[in-house]
Amino acid sequence: MGDSFGKLFRVTTWGESHGPAIGVVVEGCPPLLPLVCKENSAAGIKTLACPEIQKELDRRRPGQNELVTPRQEADVAHILSGIFEGKTTGAPISAMAFNSDFKSEDYDVFKQTDRPGHAGFTYRAKYGIYDYRGGGRSSYRETWGRVFAGAIAKKILKKLGIEVLAYVAQVADIEAHIDPNKVTMKEIEASPTRCPHPASAKLMEELIEKAKQEGDSLGGVVGVIVKNMPIGLGEPVFDKLDADLFKALKSIHATKSVEIGAGSEAATLKGSEHNDPFAVDRSGKIHPLTNKAGGVLGGISTGENLILRVTFKPTATIRKPQSTVTVSGKKTILEGAGRHDPCVLPRAIPTVEAMTALTLVDHYLRDAAYSAFVKR
Amino acid sequence: MGDSFGKLFRVTTWGESHGPAIGVVVEGCPPLLPLVCKENSAAGIKTLACPEIQKELDRRRPGQNELVTPRQEADVAHILSGIFEGKTTGAPISAMAFNSDFKSEDYDVFKQTDRPGHAGFTYRAKYGIYDYRGGGRSSYRETWGRVFAGAIAKKILKKLGIEVLAYVAQVADIEAHIDPNKVTMKEIEASPTRCPHPASAKLMEELIEKAKQEGDSLGGVVGVIVKNMPIGLGEPVFDKLDADLFKALKSIHATKSVEIGAGSEAATLKGSEHNDPFAVDRSGKIHPLTNKAGGVLGGISTGENLILRVTFKPTATIRKPQSTVTVSGKKTILEGAGRHDPCVLPRAIPTVEAMTALTLVDHYLRDAAYSAFVKR
Amino acid sequence: MGDSFGKLFRVTTWGESHGPAIGVVVEGCPPLLPLVCKENSAAGIKTLACPEIQKELDRRRPGQNELVTPRQEADVAHILSGIFEGKTTGAPISAMAFNSDFKSEDYDVFKQTDRPGHAGFTYRAKYGIYDYRGGGRSSYRETWGRVFAGAIAKKILKKLGIEVLAYVAQVADIEAHIDPNKVTMKEIEASPTRCPHPASAKLMEELIEKAKQEGDSLGGVVGVIVKNMPIGLGEPVFDKLDADLFKALKSIHATKSVEIGAGSEAATLKGSEHNDPFAVDRSGKIHPLTNKAGGVLGGISTGENLILRVTFKPTATIRKPQSTVTVSGKKTILEGAGRHDPCVLPRAIPTVEAMTALTLVDHYLRDAAYSAFVKR
Amino acid sequence: MGDSFGKLFRVTTWGESHGPAIGVVVEGCPPLLPLVCKENSAAGIKTLACPEIQKELDRRRPGQNELVTPRQEADVAHILSGIFEGKTTGAPISAMAFNSDFKSEDYDVFKQTDRPGHAGFTYRAKYGIYDYRGGGRSSYRETWGRVFAGAIAKKILKKLGIEVLAYVAQVADIEAHIDPNKVTMKEIEASPTRCPHPASAKLMEELIEKAKQEGDSLGGVVGVIVKNMPIGLGEPVFDKLDADLFKALKSIHATKSVEIGAGSEAATLKGSEHNDPFAVDRSGKIHPLTNKAGGVLGGISTGENLILRVTFKPTATIRKPQSTVTVSGKKTILEGAGRHDPCVLPRAIPTVEAMTALTLVDHYLRDAAYSAFVKR
Repeated sequence: MGDSFGKLFRVTTWGESHGPAIGVVVEGCPPLLPLVCKENSAAGIKTLACPEIQKELDRRRPGQNELVTPRQEADVAHILSGIFEGKTTGAPISAMAFNSDFKSEDYDVFKQTDRPGHAGFTYRAKYGIYDYRGGGRSSYRETWGRVFAGAIAKKILKKLGIEVLAYVAQVADIEAHIDPNKVTMKEIEASPTRCPHPASAKLMEELIEKAKQEGDSLGGVVGVIVKNMPIGLGEPVFDKLDADLFKALKSIHATKSVEIGAGSEAATLKGSEHNDPFAVDRSGKIHPLTNKAGGVLGGISTGENLILRVTFKPTATIRKPQSTVTVSGKKTILEGAGRHDPCVLPRAIPTVEAMTALTLVDHYLRDAAYSAFVKR
Repeated sequence: MGDSFGKLFRVTTWGESHGPAIGVVVEGCPPLLPLVCKENSAAGIKTLACPEIQKELDRRRPGQNELVTPRQEADVAHILSGIFEGKTTGAPISAMAFNSDFKSEDYDVFKQTDRPGHAGFTYRAKYGIYDYRGGGRSSYRETWGRVFAGAIAKKILKKLGIEVLAYVAQVADIEAHIDPNKVTMKEIEASPTRCPHPASAKLMEELIEKAKQEGDSLGGVVGVIVKNMPIGLGEPVFDKLDADLFKALKSIHATKSVEIGAGSEAATLKGSEHNDPFAVDRSGKIHPLTNKAGGVLGGISTGENLILRVTFKPTATIRKPQSTVTVSGKKTILEGAGRHDPCVLPRAIPTVEAMTALTLVDHYLRDAAYSAFVKR
Repeated sequence: MGDSFGKLFRVTTWGESHGPAIGVVVEGCPPLLPLVCKENSAAGIKTLACPEIQKELDRRRPGQNELVTPRQEADVAHILSGIFEGKTTGAPISAMAFNSDFKSEDYDVFKQTDRPGHAGFTYRAKYGIYDYRGGGRSSYRETWGRVFAGAIAKKILKKLGIEVLAYVAQVADIEAHIDPNKVTMKEIEASPTRCPHPASAKLMEELIEKAKQEGDSLGGVVGVIVKNMPIGLGEPVFDKLDADLFKALKSIHATKSVEIGAGSEAATLKGSEHNDPFAVDRSGKIHPLTNKAGGVLGGISTGENLILRVTFKPTATIRKPQSTVTVSGKKTILEGAGRHDPCVLPRAIPTVEAMTALTLVDHYLRDAAYSAFVKR
Repeated sequence: MGDSFGKLFRVTTWGESHGPAIGVVVEGCPPLLPLVCKENSAAGIKTLACPEIQKELDRRRPGQNELVTPRQEADVAHILSGIFEGKTTGAPISAMAFNSDFKSEDYDVFKQTDRPGHAGFTYRAKYGIYDYRGGGRSSYRETWGRVFAGAIAKKILKKLGIEVLAYVAQVADIEAHIDPNKVTMKEIEASPTRCPHPASAKLMEELIEKAKQEGDSLGGVVGVIVKNMPIGLGEPVFDKLDADLFKALKSIHATKSVEIGAGSEAATLKGSEHNDPFAVDRSGKIHPLTNKAGGVLGGISTGENLILRVTFKPTATIRKPQSTVTVSGKKTILEGAGRHDPCVLPRAIPTVEAMTALTLVDHYLRDAAYSAFVKR
């Protein structure tokens, strides 16, 4: 019972990768948001299609290029509710995508043997039952719903002038040295790696290609930057903006660490080095000068850019043979089953952006509830 | 509106460091938990004192030794409800501590000038009003309630056989190389630094003493280890055990990064290196062999030890002069005000343990709700 | 943002009566509950059908007989997730039904004129936009999702030995004098009115038929009885079992009052008359002798039958001409538009049962979270 | 675990009537609300007193007059947090009252014998432990915290122009025939019965006095009227404004039914009688003409007055002898123990107002979260 995220802008995902469909319900979307839709009669049923949202979903789709899993998912969003005459109505927005590219037999081996490093083991133990075909709820396909909801959240943020970007900052030991404040969507999308630093991107591509051939997988780091942040988002003391962002980002499959601002490097700085004196900008606004904090002080946004980093482990599912035991405890060699991403990072970018955007919209609404009482 | 933590075991803290008192309410504590109390008539009122809980509070108390702030807080817990004849009743447990060691005048300077790196700036902006004396809600004193609630949570976990430990793993550039699985409470408490590695502890002490003399502050890393974990805690897909732990730990003042298992090092490993094959232990139980995951797969506990790391920035309040601007935008030099911890880490240990324990008890209860339906 | 119900067993409904589909997501369903499904390839897509659940949905379907609205909704549930090999998996169960019997043009009049007594007026005001075709989210069709989820909840309750029944106790001024403790499902389903008292049922039928001919509508009272209740459900002081039942039942369209036990008659009784002495039953169990309380004391179930009553107003949509004003304030006569139930009560029975069952399962799980700590 | 109420304006009460103190924490109070306080050094501790809030608490205090329980509770609110320089800060407001007038020995009899109609029986069964002195959490003293929080909520509503009134409409069979829309606070407070109809009030007084002498108790009906309601409060489909009001009011001790608008009388009206045509008022605003709905359509406020009714049962604790059994099942006569209200209604008025106000403020904030997106 943890399939929902958010307090006022609340997203619930459902579905297994090898069931009939996957989907999402978005509650608490403000009314009157323009989302132009057209009829979508795929599958013999009348539903709605929203090109603006579909564009985001296409960014996370497998099979976009050579670097990612060749599985051709049917990622077309069938929108089923909450939009009327091209605008949101305040009612829940429900959408789903059918699971058309089944190869469940590929997964038969996982009925008897859990993949090392994979959630199959714990799902089986917790629930006493496990949909081993493709990973059930633990499949990366679950993020489809997050990206759908994130597209709506990004639309709301855009209306407020806020831009959320994520990019690949590191793959294995290739680290791209870039100033996150200067990264643009165009640069990110210029390479299939989604690394906005062309030289690093090239090296990453080669590494990923090599890992693919070896049947192995790679990890890395995703950077997050949010521009034009308003001041005042975040609810101390537990629902701090960054605390909720850490949860949001850690809830993404395969993540292992989250950092904000100076992050783990803050450990070796002195107060006099890490502290960030206030200054007056050209418009007369007081703000922290260097933003070492990464955009949040005391759990509340400072108005400076949000700067975060997320580490991803290498994908658990690999083609290389692995020594392990079956669910009944017999020694076995597991090899070669299932299709997989040799490096999940490029495809994780839209999900990282989505989770960031969902957290921000939720906190925007939470803060806005008091807007009649505080003048900013 | 973010002063509560937990879904079934719910903790609400209240109070400012320079108001009349601070306190906490713990909802959802199971009944019949033994918590022996005696009468506590300090301050002329009849309340209850629980020595077992007070012991934990004394661990976080300022003024324990030379390394921490000399402020002598009145940390005695006045328990006001929820305990009857030495046992919990299932009703909310309310407790408070009076704020006796006021020196509000020390803080007068903060009326006009926000401390660089401190939450005063954002609180003022968000709420349009700010209790500048001692930091209001953003004061570290707020963690008193977390540690009180954490003591109850640790008691529940102990009954279930689970032990939560936190320790100082790094201060500035002194890193203690230790196996978290082998750390004991006794070793942690042996040094005022709460670093269980004596040689490193000695060096850390010297560094902290030096920073104190310089009027500066230091950051570092806290390690967390949870032993005898049950399998099955955590609620995919958003309320993953580790996602909720990341939020819990990030909600602590001055934290900048959280990692689990291999953490940020997972970025440079291959799948074949990071994956953790399953094996059968002596009792015939299947488990991951190397626990690189840090005790969680797919958001659900594996039964192996939980292993996390949290980075703390250096304390924002320092004695050294800092160039900044006043709240009206005038350039100024801020210096010397308020008492502070030159290094918050030793005193943060009980809070880190508390937030970990609160998360685990909440997830234990969430999982237990289904116990009649799953046999493990 | 109020489309979800429940804390641990959480139901979210979505969809408008004249959009592409309506649906529901059930989170927190225990795993391993048997729900046998077969393939359901209606509409050219592969989904699952569960006959056991469909049976409940068929009970609420319009067009069952002469007494209810002739609209032929497509009420077939397409199950999309959460069930694997005939059992629940602990993952969210998602289901939908397509809206096939559109006659949106029937509703064109409501674009300009809100129906007296209908939610159109307030939706338009709150959201600034209103899907006037069929009432949007305020349509009675929304209860489809409640009944779907309720069917699962009733299945869980059945496993625990608990039976939830609702029945028509009054229509207009025809009141059926019956002992709720003796009512059976068979008697309820014996009449299209769902009144288990045959003579009253006959009179109600005639009244409803007459109202239908006059283009008018009737209200009435639904009785609720829950048998074999466990002791101990309900969470004082705000989430009392009966407080949550009052909310659950009031959330159903057209309800105007809710009562428990002696209900509004308790106003005229003395304490010595209303109080319910304890006695020992044959098995040696202590219990309240007369159950005037209706099964709850202090917000916690006593183990006696739950007894509630819910008043429904007459349906707002009627065929008779009504003087009113258009949305731009012009006087007008509204008449004859849309199809409607002359009396919603018979069809409301499954929804009342559903909301009762959802509340009970949620409270069962909330109570069960503590089962390891209390022995009953 | 049900000690909190509200989603954004969240109130948590704690404490038992015979423990050290009772109290409340109010989260989510908007900042900058003026609440002038003075020092309150009762009990030897420095706390804050707010005369404006205390006035409301004094209205619910026992021992106000002859009609209510003679127990002299110390009802003075010690405010401990959340107010700075006469204004709220957005931080949690914590307050408590000490329990000074203990006569626990009066309650010794309840250790062995649960009172008929009282929550002792179910608390004991649910938790396996019961603070029998004075009823523990089920004591009416728990409402102190509700009234404290309600005073703040009423202050917020006043700022928004909204007035919440409750009054005694019926005691036993004395029913006061009054137009709720015309009731004023002054008329309510004119009689110790809090019935604004003088002739009825007189008869009620006599009845209550008689019940007191007989050692018996009386029930009755409380009316609720909210004036100057804004349009648009309430969150369909589950968190309807009236559904949440029903829960709020039912959560008050001793309530047995809740009605809105025509209430249970709606059962016997036809649609053409109950429907409420729209009209244009003098200012050009469209509104329902007769407000039979009681101020809510489809779960959203219409802008008309809210009109509700709540039935209270007669107090369970009476002096008259009652035949019952002890907790070990032996037959016994219970008589005369504890002090009690012969009729709880006059003293329940502030609690009814409080729960209504808490629900309205919570819904106001929930609606306001979207204010930037909808123009009304």
